[in-house]
Amino acid sequence: MSILPMAPHRDPERQCIITCALSGVVANRDQCPAIPYSPEEYAAEARRAYEAGAAVVHIHARDPLDGSPSYKVEHYRAIRDAIVDACPVVINFSTGAVGISTEQKIAPVREIRPAMAALNMGSMNYAKYHQQKKSFVFEFVFPNPFSEIVELIKAMNEVDSKPEMECFDAGHVANSYPLVDMGLLKPPFQYSLILGVTGGIAPTIDSLIHMSSCVPEWSEWELIGISRDQWRLVAGAIAMGGNVRVGLEDNFYVEPGRMAKSNGELVEKAAHMIRDQGREPATPEECRRRLKLKNR
Amino acid sequence: MSILPMAPHRDPERQCIITCALSGVVANRDQCPAIPYSPEEYAAEARRAYEAGAAVVHIHARDPLDGSPSYKVEHYRAIRDAIVDACPVVINFSTGAVGISTEQKIAPVREIRPAMAALNMGSMNYAKYHQQKKSFVFEFVFPNPFSEIVELIKAMNEVDSKPEMECFDAGHVANSYPLVDMGLLKPPFQYSLILGVTGGIAPTIDSLIHMSSCVPEWSEWELIGISRDQWRLVAGAIAMGGNVRVGLEDNFYVEPGRMAKSNGELVEKAAHMIRDQGREPATPEECRRRLKLKNR
Amino acid sequence: MSILPMAPHRDPERQCIITCALSGVVANRDQCPAIPYSPEEYAAEARRAYEAGAAVVHIHARDPLDGSPSYKVEHYRAIRDAIVDACPVVINFSTGAVGISTEQKIAPVREIRPAMAALNMGSMNYAKYHQQKKSFVFEFVFPNPFSEIVELIKAMNEVDSKPEMECFDAGHVANSYPLVDMGLLKPPFQYSLILGVTGGIAPTIDSLIHMSSCVPEWSEWELIGISRDQWRLVAGAIAMGGNVRVGLEDNFYVEPGRMAKSNGELVEKAAHMIRDQGREPATPEECRRRLKLKNR
Amino acid sequence: MSILPMAPHRDPERQCIITCALSGVVANRDQCPAIPYSPEEYAAEARRAYEAGAAVVHIHARDPLDGSPSYKVEHYRAIRDAIVDACPVVINFSTGAVGISTEQKIAPVREIRPAMAALNMGSMNYAKYHQQKKSFVFEFVFPNPFSEIVELIKAMNEVDSKPEMECFDAGHVANSYPLVDMGLLKPPFQYSLILGVTGGIAPTIDSLIHMSSCVPEWSEWELIGISRDQWRLVAGAIAMGGNVRVGLEDNFYVEPGRMAKSNGELVEKAAHMIRDQGREPATPEECRRRLKLKNR
Repeated sequence: MSILPMAPHRDPERQCIITCALSGVVANRDQCPAIPYSPEEYAAEARRAYEAGAAVVHIHARDPLDGSPSYKVEHYRAIRDAIVDACPVVINFSTGAVGISTEQKIAPVREIRPAMAALNMGSMNYAKYHQQKKSFVFEFVFPNPFSEIVELIKAMNEVDSKPEMECFDAGHVANSYPLVDMGLLKPPFQYSLILGVTGGIAPTIDSLIHMSSCVPEWSEWELIGISRDQWRLVAGAIAMGGNVRVGLEDNFYVEPGRMAKSNGELVEKAAHMIRDQGREPATPEECRRRLKLKNR
Repeated sequence: MSILPMAPHRDPERQCIITCALSGVVANRDQCPAIPYSPEEYAAEARRAYEAGAAVVHIHARDPLDGSPSYKVEHYRAIRDAIVDACPVVINFSTGAVGISTEQKIAPVREIRPAMAALNMGSMNYAKYHQQKKSFVFEFVFPNPFSEIVELIKAMNEVDSKPEMECFDAGHVANSYPLVDMGLLKPPFQYSLILGVTGGIAPTIDSLIHMSSCVPEWSEWELIGISRDQWRLVAGAIAMGGNVRVGLEDNFYVEPGRMAKSNGELVEKAAHMIRDQGREPATPEECRRRLKLKNR
Repeated sequence: MSILPMAPHRDPERQCIITCALSGVVANRDQCPAIPYSPEEYAAEARRAYEAGAAVVHIHARDPLDGSPSYKVEHYRAIRDAIVDACPVVINFSTGAVGISTEQKIAPVREIRPAMAALNMGSMNYAKYHQQKKSFVFEFVFPNPFSEIVELIKAMNEVDSKPEMECFDAGHVANSYPLVDMGLLKPPFQYSLILGVTGGIAPTIDSLIHMSSCVPEWSEWELIGISRDQWRLVAGAIAMGGNVRVGLEDNFYVEPGRMAKSNGELVEKAAHMIRDQGREPATPEECRRRLKLKNR
Repeated sequence: MSILPMAPHRDPERQCIITCALSGVVANRDQCPAIPYSPEEYAAEARRAYEAGAAVVHIHARDPLDGSPSYKVEHYRAIRDAIVDACPVVINFSTGAVGISTEQKIAPVREIRPAMAALNMGSMNYAKYHQQKKSFVFEFVFPNPFSEIVELIKAMNEVDSKPEMECFDAGHVANSYPLVDMGLLKPPFQYSLILGVTGGIAPTIDSLIHMSSCVPEWSEWELIGISRDQWRLVAGAIAMGGNVRVGLEDNFYVEPGRMAKSNGELVEKAAHMIRDQGREPATPEECRRRLKLKNR
């Protein structure tokens, strides 16, 4: 234990919780052959991630027939059941989507009651910029109004799923303050700080320092680095005492030019980066204990 | 001149540009009797602001008949002409609005060619939280997609109106980077850092430090503090070498419980806070010089 | 009360404790006629400071005959007694000196038991640089080894005088951590962050943000700004929720070119800067309560 | 190249210069058998470091007979010559010492003209705290007055050795500002930010962010992490775009409980941590180019 007067969530001597985002929603096997489509493939990837050091898996469901994104309860259930059979990782369901109703977004959480459920904490532009072409590859408004955030939290609270607050900007962290004040969010809080999306906060260590300093005490926070800046930001988050997320949803590449053959390979890299800094990856049990999780 | 290796936009020895937001769009005279409705009232308020130390006035037009918000070119023109007759302040037009077309938003700028024009730099939740009632007074999604931002900048560039980039969050500053890279934005840049809106970045000195450190060199930046935290943030911005905006749009109160009798009274307070720290308010000429403004 | 998850020592809604450093040790009446020499003059200055809003006075003693610096118990006692008769401010004795023994430094504290006693928290170069002449006006090593710091704390603890930790650099704050760990320092802690001495940390808002973020919870912290940058740093400290010190020891000037006629005039300026930001100066009673002071 | 408006010395896409501090002055082979004593051993260690990715070696000389610290020109020369024969690394001589004259400190630099020479940039307490025993293992005042700093820089300038400014606290970085203003220091500047010594700045990522933000443009900066926090700070510095120093002087351990068998092993770990983040170690040539070094 250090003599530095460190808030617990900035203490770099704690175990580091690795989350693995197995699949994502946008990319498919044309871009990366290791992306799982079927429940069996999800389970195999979850197991590889677990064995490499992941404590949590974050799941966007897919239709096993063609790998297209799915928001159906039955697909979530099949994936969840296969993973539970394969290894003891903590289950985290996505709820982020554009173009479906709030009720559709939350249905899998309501029915299957995962330990955690992702929650987008604010509206923003969501874009991809192409530096060589000097133009946007795509760009849209990603709307996550307070009314829907409140509705989602209430549903999560009813089924004891811990909200994982996905924050793409400093203000998204601040959006949690009135919700804490209203008694909707209860400690320990779980913040995900997402850097590297055009439209959100810039992918720098300064951004990470600032966002993590906005998190209330009695919180866990993890870095989610999107695309090319990921590994650098992962290293920074580990150094600051944070947790990290990796996985094929966020970045395919183990190193420039070398695509991961599995989620396990990405978790393995995260785990050795954690150990290089003298920390240890947390087990699923440690994660459950720190976040006081109630569901599997 | 200091021996500190300070970027010019963080140099607290420079003159401080005061902008006065005369009127705003939401509030009316029931809330604050000093809000101007007619061109003559705008001009009188602009003159008071100028005499108290303001270099720039930021204008949302109103219909002189009933004070309702207006986006009509004729209303903007009448207000602009009255102000130009009354005093030499720099003119800055709002373009922010919900529910009208991009072409309507930009029309007054296209036709009247003000020195500066405001530009909302990102999408966000825009809300007001009531701490005692534990509920939101209002909340909506404020959409400002990249496509519209690009369209507005191009129109501003065509008529030589300097974009005043309104940033409610750290990522809104970052949204300028691809636009700089595309050559749409040209130095010197003008950033407004807006703190105190629920849905945006938290109203703290740490937020201000972080946002102002994200601004590129060859920039001016100003603090816009909304509501109760305004004066504290104004003091912080002055101390960091920034510029400030005050005015009835942002905050009615000179001090807790004492509503301003005019915009001039608010500018007067800002000016003495600037002098208390050993800085001087900038003249309109100094502002034109530093921002290389082309229009009146 | 704000919904921001603010540590108490960063809460800008608290009352702001003003300390007035009445006299200092280096300057004399040739430089500034208002500097007090005799106990009666100290008392009159303390009363002016108190009436203007100061809760604490910081005292370097002088020989009443010629105003030369004194470390004698009898001089401290006469000054202390005169002040106590004049007004209810909290008394804080200096212990900083070069060229006398530790026992001499601490003797007035031991004998007179003031509520607080200053404690230099680290060694450093102490210099004044003349920018026009491109040379140092003076420069020396200011030694404050851990062994002496420990000895001084023990003596202060014995007589219930609260150590006011004077920190000229970020590492001086960190020097308190082992002393807290050893049980020598007990909360609430009192840190003074001194900016503007060549040899110490640079006089910027960034420095102040960093140093104040290094202070443990259950602390009070105040800004001491030396010389020309003082008022800007005072404004920043008020904005961050800190306390402030002013007085003829630190800076003679109310504004550029206008020397203060009394310590009261400097405190008056600090008090109105505090009120400009919506805060209130703390009374001596509030200060005693927050710092759990035991002596007068 | 990134679109982020990054100062060059914070650009994480640059190559990372690894310096290896081969030997140190305090420890000996009883503590760590791999510490070199003889010129041949220094050369072998330098070569291992070079082959693992180091661009610079930092040298404290020792008497080859018993490994005791030496400040003699002849010992420095023998070591330097052996290293130059063994590999093309950049040579950096220490000048830090307690208890010898300034002339003795600088003599090896004057005579042998290394490419770089270390320069302690301020006075401080220098201590080691034992947390279990609740006491200091040792503690002393480390005096580095401005007068001596100026004298050392002048000597280095005469022989074209680039000063490597060793900064143990934020104020030590600020101590360079008057020296730059006097024209004694010339860009590109080389700052070493040393974290982890009790008496200096606290070993946190926040400290590193703050110190590196105090460095003027046209600078290189490197992290020197002492003891247990080293690898975490190394990871943070790499993520921020800085350079790093490792080696037996700073930390014996590759990981908790595993002592390095050579300096090469420590450099190897640094190099793979650099590559894990997508950066590359700089060659000696790249280092010479960026720092405009004139001597070997």
